[in-house]
Amino acid sequence: MTAVGTKPHHARSLAEVLVAADSRGHYSHGLNRMDMYVKDIKSGVCAVDGEPVAEKESAATALVDGKNLLGPVVGNFCMNLAITKAKEVGIGWVVAHGSNHFGIAGYYAMQALKDNMIGMSFTNTSPLVVATRGKERTLGTNPLSVAAPAKDGDSFVLDTATSAVALGKVELSERHGDSIPDGWGCDPQGKITADPKRVLTGGGLVPIGGSEATGGYKGYGLGMMVEVFCGILAGAHYSKYVRTWKVTDRVADLGQCFVAINPENFAEGFNERMSDLLSIQRNQDLADPDAPVLTPGDPERASLKKCEELGGILYHINVVKYMNDYAKKIGVSELLPCDQTVST
Amino acid sequence: MTAVGTKPHHARSLAEVLVAADSRGHYSHGLNRMDMYVKDIKSGVCAVDGEPVAEKESAATALVDGKNLLGPVVGNFCMNLAITKAKEVGIGWVVAHGSNHFGIAGYYAMQALKDNMIGMSFTNTSPLVVATRGKERTLGTNPLSVAAPAKDGDSFVLDTATSAVALGKVELSERHGDSIPDGWGCDPQGKITADPKRVLTGGGLVPIGGSEATGGYKGYGLGMMVEVFCGILAGAHYSKYVRTWKVTDRVADLGQCFVAINPENFAEGFNERMSDLLSIQRNQDLADPDAPVLTPGDPERASLKKCEELGGILYHINVVKYMNDYAKKIGVSELLPCDQTVST
Repeated sequence: MTAVGTKPHHARSLAEVLVAADSRGHYSHGLNRMDMYVKDIKSGVCAVDGEPVAEKESAATALVDGKNLLGPVVGNFCMNLAITKAKEVGIGWVVAHGSNHFGIAGYYAMQALKDNMIGMSFTNTSPLVVATRGKERTLGTNPLSVAAPAKDGDSFVLDTATSAVALGKVELSERHGDSIPDGWGCDPQGKITADPKRVLTGGGLVPIGGSEATGGYKGYGLGMMVEVFCGILAGAHYSKYVRTWKVTDRVADLGQCFVAINPENFAEGFNERMSDLLSIQRNQDLADPDAPVLTPGDPERASLKKCEELGGILYHINVVKYMNDYAKKIGVSELLPCDQTVST
Repeated sequence: MTAVGTKPHHARSLAEVLVAADSRGHYSHGLNRMDMYVKDIKSGVCAVDGEPVAEKESAATALVDGKNLLGPVVGNFCMNLAITKAKEVGIGWVVAHGSNHFGIAGYYAMQALKDNMIGMSFTNTSPLVVATRGKERTLGTNPLSVAAPAKDGDSFVLDTATSAVALGKVELSERHGDSIPDGWGCDPQGKITADPKRVLTGGGLVPIGGSEATGGYKGYGLGMMVEVFCGILAGAHYSKYVRTWKVTDRVADLGQCFVAINPENFAEGFNERMSDLLSIQRNQDLADPDAPVLTPGDPERASLKKCEELGGILYHINVVKYMNDYAKKIGVSELLPCDQTVST
């Protein structure tokens, strides 16, 4: 990133989010997307100079101009501001325009855990989701994340797109020649389809809940809610005005929202109740004795544990090769040789 | 309500929420539930004396003791407090313990529209929902509502349970002898079932998204998120500790959360962008030319329009009979005779 002109501390912000995604097992949002960020900087469509600025502030709120900087630079600025406000008045609600892809939403929400607070983050994204009964892509996958601290470092970390699945899952099915389950995507006529090709060429993802009969309109409403907190509240691009996915023809101007809530302003014993709620879910009777009930954040915790045991993140050899090819192209040194290979 | 001891202004608060539900077409949450509130007061399990009290406050937050009063009394108190704070510092985040059923969540969120603000409300409820992979009812239907003002009185009003469907829909299918679609509920072993009887006897509702394969874990996470904002943050009953649905053996002590956000603290032109977002959705190409794309709140708007045209709310004759029978039992005057009957 610095080789193409990014300031070192901005590059570090990006690196931290990507590593967080990979170590948490969300490889789709990690190193795998490096080329997208490099392209954004190289093409000049994403800015390298300046820092985000708070344009309007109250004790509890702020409107931030992200100055078209890298998403993680804007995200960290806003989340820190939200936490500072929550320390003073119990809550900080900060929205940004002029931002870019910020990686996993959970990264920002989780920053609040360090101060024993609830954190939230939201972003709009390039249009990929078709509204219930429609056939145009009028919403992004618009993820939301909520993190809440329990006792002894345990936590609740919800990090979910408001589409039924991520685009990557549909792409993978297409590459493997598999059909997709009902309720993942629709064809160009807006009908639910099992054919991933039709979803990718002219169709789209559908909201959480799938078809209208199974409650897809709820996910559609949640996707719009995220857009209200992001593009609409921040005065950024929104809905179909956000640029097409992976196209860098113009500035992204994404809208994002960051919230910190201080449990100290509410009832005592928050961490204890939070731990108890997690225990109730994890320790209940199982539908299938081999499939434990998880709470949001548990799969990521398992992935982090695996990384700790291995002493690093496990990357697919193709990702390593891809990174090294990319390094050569940009003229920077390759990754250190793999010191361990694991067959899975 | 006053005949069984409710203070007149508390009874009025309840009446307004029930009428709002009925006129918006949500008959399941209107007069139809009158007996539940009467029973709560008659049995003494819900309090009639006193008013809610803010126990802890900052410029932007409050923790409220609902004093075990009727849900709408607590809800109105909290929502008004949230709006007052949002006028001062851009946001008010108020949570209550010691509350009771408050009717439709949307009623409270919509109060913020009068001051051209975004409103939100959340409540935990009696355990009815089974977590993904589990077989116990560890969550309520935990609804959330978000209302946002557009131009000229238009608005976005999302009001949704975090379960795939309401219990009432399953009960209705059972009464009609119909099967239910995959993804509405599970049997006592936690398996998705088409048999409404099994859902109602030992099984449960499933979260938005249905089974694990279709993304039910997302709805499960959202249901937990609502619980974090309600029972956990407020120090109320939560999860399986909330009393069983329709059982009045002990105090409900529900946790609820009310939020107001002032768009004036963020980017100018909020109402215009909001109207445009609604237009984009409503005016897009349709999958089925006879099924228009709606935005959250549109079905309710159609119902309100119908009530205006008819000069009142259309009730099923059985609801009228039931109300009159109930009136006799309590010793109050019956409803005025129906001045119009409509066959549907």
